[in-house]
Amino acid sequence: MKRKRLDDTQCPIARSLEHVGEWWSIMILRDALYGYTRFDEFQESLGIAPNMLTKRLNSLVESGLLERRLYNAHPPRYEYVPTAKGRDFRPVLIALLAWGNRHLAPEGKAVVLTEAKTGKAADPILVDRVSGKPVTERDFVFRAGPAANARIRRRYAAH
Amino acid sequence: MKRKRLDDTQCPIARSLEHVGEWWSIMILRDALYGYTRFDEFQESLGIAPNMLTKRLNSLVESGLLERRLYNAHPPRYEYVPTAKGRDFRPVLIALLAWGNRHLAPEGKAVVLTEAKTGKAADPILVDRVSGKPVTERDFVFRAGPAANARIRRRYAAH
Repeated sequence: MKRKRLDDTQCPIARSLEHVGEWWSIMILRDALYGYTRFDEFQESLGIAPNMLTKRLNSLVESGLLERRLYNAHPPRYEYVPTAKGRDFRPVLIALLAWGNRHLAPEGKAVVLTEAKTGKAADPILVDRVSGKPVTERDFVFRAGPAANARIRRRYAAH
Repeated sequence: MKRKRLDDTQCPIARSLEHVGEWWSIMILRDALYGYTRFDEFQESLGIAPNMLTKRLNSLVESGLLERRLYNAHPPRYEYVPTAKGRDFRPVLIALLAWGNRHLAPEGKAVVLTEAKTGKAADPILVDRVSGKPVTERDFVFRAGPAANARIRRRYAAH
């Protein structure tokens, strides 16, 4: 969206942010993954201006994170439902939630990730599915992958 | 930053985004957590305008994610080093990386999370530290926490 370097577009973080790197987009995704589907629900939840909401919803549909479905023919009314790609964004939201709870909630937690069956508060951490090890900074690093261009290879060779 | 609803500010995702919900802030954090510390390094890496870089760096310092340190007295030169709060943002970046690699890298992965010791590609997933279970949508849900206001309690009671 605001990127300047064309050769930086290979970075998967930059690419992700091109699709959702806008405050409202992430808040809409939060609500959509919570179960809201209708324009009015998003608007009431977010207090967002209708023209901005339309714009962000269209952008999320174009990026393939939400699907627009007709739920009423006369008059035509649409709902917005997360796609598999949209649902898969949930770990990002949970990581933001965990960080916010840890560092920005001096009065205590207002929203917690909870195990549905037991009602127990969960403590989400990243582990490597392969080895089961916690993804700590020391043990897991970013490296150039098979599709890396010269710029990315240089970058990750330097450190 | 762009929020409209004061009573929505309790949401830890919204709060996190107030601090880092800006494309450049997250890209600067990516670089800072990779090891870049100096103005010129960020500028060269990101191709960002100097006035914008200054603004975003100051904002990250104010939010307590980066610390400004004098590394040269004459002339005065500063470097920007992640704080504990900044380092703790890494899971968000890794979640963005994983999502980008999965959905936005048709030509293959350009950057991969890698186990440092073995050089093996890692597959980061979220698990609950307490139970060890993968944080799936079905098993783990958002619920109102002890500090929730009435609005948040209503919201999470409804579903």
